[in-house]
Amino acid sequence: MKRSGSRSEATAMALVEAALQIIRESGVKSVTHRKVCSYAGVALGSSTYHYENLDNLILDAFGHYVDTVSVKYEAHFEGATSDEDLIEGALTLVNAMTTDMGNAILEWELFAEAGRQDAYRELGHKWSRRARAAIERYVSPKTAHMMEAVWDGSTVQRVLNGNQMSDDMIRELLRAALELDPSRGYPRQEEAAKPVTAKPVKKTAKKAAAKRATTTRRRSKAS
Amino acid sequence: MKRSGSRSEATAMALVEAALQIIRESGVKSVTHRKVCSYAGVALGSSTYHYENLDNLILDAFGHYVDTVSVKYEAHFEGATSDEDLIEGALTLVNAMTTDMGNAILEWELFAEAGRQDAYRELGHKWSRRARAAIERYVSPKTAHMMEAVWDGSTVQRVLNGNQMSDDMIRELLRAALELDPSRGYPRQEEAAKPVTAKPVKKTAKKAAAKRATTTRRRSKAS
Repeated sequence: MKRSGSRSEATAMALVEAALQIIRESGVKSVTHRKVCSYAGVALGSSTYHYENLDNLILDAFGHYVDTVSVKYEAHFEGATSDEDLIEGALTLVNAMTTDMGNAILEWELFAEAGRQDAYRELGHKWSRRARAAIERYVSPKTAHMMEAVWDGSTVQRVLNGNQMSDDMIRELLRAALELDPSRGYPRQEEAAKPVTAKPVKKTAKKAAAKRATTTRRRSKAS
Repeated sequence: MKRSGSRSEATAMALVEAALQIIRESGVKSVTHRKVCSYAGVALGSSTYHYENLDNLILDAFGHYVDTVSVKYEAHFEGATSDEDLIEGALTLVNAMTTDMGNAILEWELFAEAGRQDAYRELGHKWSRRARAAIERYVSPKTAHMMEAVWDGSTVQRVLNGNQMSDDMIRELLRAALELDPSRGYPRQEEAAKPVTAKPVKKTAKKAAAKRATTTRRRSKAS
């Protein structure tokens, strides 16, 4: 039941995964069509067929990364019934970002690009909105901002200083942020009647990436 | 009273400043000897004369940046006499990092490299130690870690989401971290007899950069 569509999807996925690997190893500026094809194990030219513009490939790669990470942390926060659940969810996030250093590297490469280019800042902004939406069922938007600041900053501390900032210290700081918010609840009292702000994940990251790739495909080759 | 030494220092400083500008604009991977000389307005070859290894130039550039930033925040924390002083100092830092986006970009480029290479991680570690030393006169090492996590994370929030995370929210979060620490004081009670952990800045950043440049100068040319 092989279809050209699924093959195309598989290639698109291989290209974004290859781009992420190159970014982890040596940064956004090291991504070239030739290198991406080599890392992906696809024919030279596949990358230019799918992505006329290398910037679109890199942006799609980061988009895929954000989707992947987001699905994971949304799962951690799903169905929290206490402060402890929220705190452990956030701590798990910090540990996931720093146990595999590649994750932290991708985060900062994205932030650095976000400092330079609107498209990346928009992606970072979306990522942040999605992260906060995952916890705004339980805490106010203000507290969600604070919690996100705590886990982003704790990630920095972990990478620069190893485990000097212990799990317990991160828990304590997250709890201090949480306890500033008298409106918090599981789900939050004044928000219980409102629909959840986080949209359900309808498309898999794989399909979304393939769709993005399709929209950027060369017109000349597609016709 | 022109001396060859001062001229060499000036060139070394121009080279690191040029490298930082290139990193801000397009990242670590865009730094080349040719581009650095062009940005610095010095003769092609000056960069290879001072730095046989391009990595050393980039590392020196980040070292110079860290020195420059550190001197500034040390001044903000110098002579704090209350929680409010510490909080305002930390908030000023966050605003300095995000008002000039180039600062946040350099921070994340450094962090991304720190995720990949020991030399950069060591520089990041030193930077963090120095930042904490500046506030450990007033708070415990544990609280210093937490405060640094808060200002690093708040910097991320500011860049991704503009001023959604207001000055007052950052103040509130810093205060929550501070108030976890009953040992805090101006100076801290149990630490008052101990010498200040932050070493006085003896060398100017300019001289330090020139010294580093000298040590990496080509032996063949120096002899």
